[in-house]
Amino acid sequence: MCVGLDPDLTRLPAAAGTGKAGIERFCKTVIDATAPYACAFKPQIAYFASAGAETQLENILRYLRDNHPALPVILDAKRGDIGSTAAHYAREAFDRYGADAVTINPYMGSDSISPYGEYPDRGVFLLCRTSNPGGDDLQSLRVQNGTDGAMKPSALYEYVASQASDHWNALVNGQAGLVIGATYPEELRVVRERIGDMPLLVPGIGAQGGDIGATVNAGLDSHGAGMLINSSRAILYASDQDDYAEQAAMVAAATRDEINRARSQHGQWT
Amino acid sequence: MCVGLDPDLTRLPAAAGTGKAGIERFCKTVIDATAPYACAFKPQIAYFASAGAETQLENILRYLRDNHPALPVILDAKRGDIGSTAAHYAREAFDRYGADAVTINPYMGSDSISPYGEYPDRGVFLLCRTSNPGGDDLQSLRVQNGTDGAMKPSALYEYVASQASDHWNALVNGQAGLVIGATYPEELRVVRERIGDMPLLVPGIGAQGGDIGATVNAGLDSHGAGMLINSSRAILYASDQDDYAEQAAMVAAATRDEINRARSQHGQWT
Repeated sequence: MCVGLDPDLTRLPAAAGTGKAGIERFCKTVIDATAPYACAFKPQIAYFASAGAETQLENILRYLRDNHPALPVILDAKRGDIGSTAAHYAREAFDRYGADAVTINPYMGSDSISPYGEYPDRGVFLLCRTSNPGGDDLQSLRVQNGTDGAMKPSALYEYVASQASDHWNALVNGQAGLVIGATYPEELRVVRERIGDMPLLVPGIGAQGGDIGATVNAGLDSHGAGMLINSSRAILYASDQDDYAEQAAMVAAATRDEINRARSQHGQWT
Repeated sequence: MCVGLDPDLTRLPAAAGTGKAGIERFCKTVIDATAPYACAFKPQIAYFASAGAETQLENILRYLRDNHPALPVILDAKRGDIGSTAAHYAREAFDRYGADAVTINPYMGSDSISPYGEYPDRGVFLLCRTSNPGGDDLQSLRVQNGTDGAMKPSALYEYVASQASDHWNALVNGQAGLVIGATYPEELRVVRERIGDMPLLVPGIGAQGGDIGATVNAGLDSHGAGMLINSSRAILYASDQDDYAEQAAMVAAATRDEINRARSQHGQWT
């Protein structure tokens, strides 16, 4: 289970304080409360950017490195730009914030991905089949590969999965994973069949309604692992009272347990 | 002509200073020198983010509003995320930085676009056919619309142009435009035929090698306008000496003149 950090200024519990300092205190408190149940943390940079809280994000990443060094941090930024600009986004994620991985958008293709390969000990998660309703608009289109149209058409998200597995992963030293929403377990299964054991970042359980059992069953790799199943709002906003840390820990523990139950049942299910 | 602001810390002229203060001084100096020839400015947020220079970006946007209020500012951020997160990116671009428009990535579909419609006096430019080599990887794929496959296949970028024109533009109060690279004038022509008079943001001349005459000829709307043709590095880094502002102004003036010559010849050409 990955804990998403989406600190909305308008939803901070009073006990965390307000403003940018409230964001930092809220995140650090939730981190300490949920770290025993988490395999990773995923700060969503939009929440920090809208509040002008980049310094607080830097502080939170440093706090994670100092206090929870075994837990990797995925900066959820969904960047995507031409090569010379992508190099600056890689610098933002890896040099400035010290993230272990960053999410990126594949729409601009290979040279928007390769600059992240300059950091051999870091990873990228490429958007493939996203958890939101509008994900269908482009990602489910049938695409034809090749000029002769001879290849069997597949959905765009399947094509992205194949490109990532066959080509883009090599640009980033084999450190690429994919983002697949938990709201689409059948599509998750299709992608897993295409990509072997590449890791998956799976948002969409909790507030977005994805089913944990179906998600785990569809997405585990050949070792019964390889998925970072993310929950953000269901954990962060489990309570808006003084007990928010305890309630966040309870939801995190229950989510982790549900994931592990599904993992242990995997095999009987298929 | 739109002037792109991509202030690379490693390329600042000595006269501009160094570090974050150098970025701010460099941008303000180039802005004042090139404003007489520009119809808009386009700061690329990656260059500010990699340097931790968000405060300087805020200052530059405020400087533009105060000193060049007639020139709109497009924040080049290429954001794209689920609705609740996109609302925070809209806040970043429009409330925090006060940009007039922002570039966004369409891969996540309609609910990643609609939050920008909460700002009726602001615009968005959706990535369509980007100027970089990797733009081909997904954008040129042949896609089939509809489950019956009856519709004639088109390239993904054409489908994006049609969706933007027919559906997404309405989500943002008719304030959408498209990003099409100047490196692909034939594709620019195809898109212009699909979208009527929607505005186009066209990067890729200057350092990226796009041809101004071919670009103007392919992309003008029915009024002989409707294009923001962007140049960033060719103007910014025209000189790394003390005369950088004068040289930036000279390149900007020459580029503006070349665009206007092509506009005046348009009609004879087609």
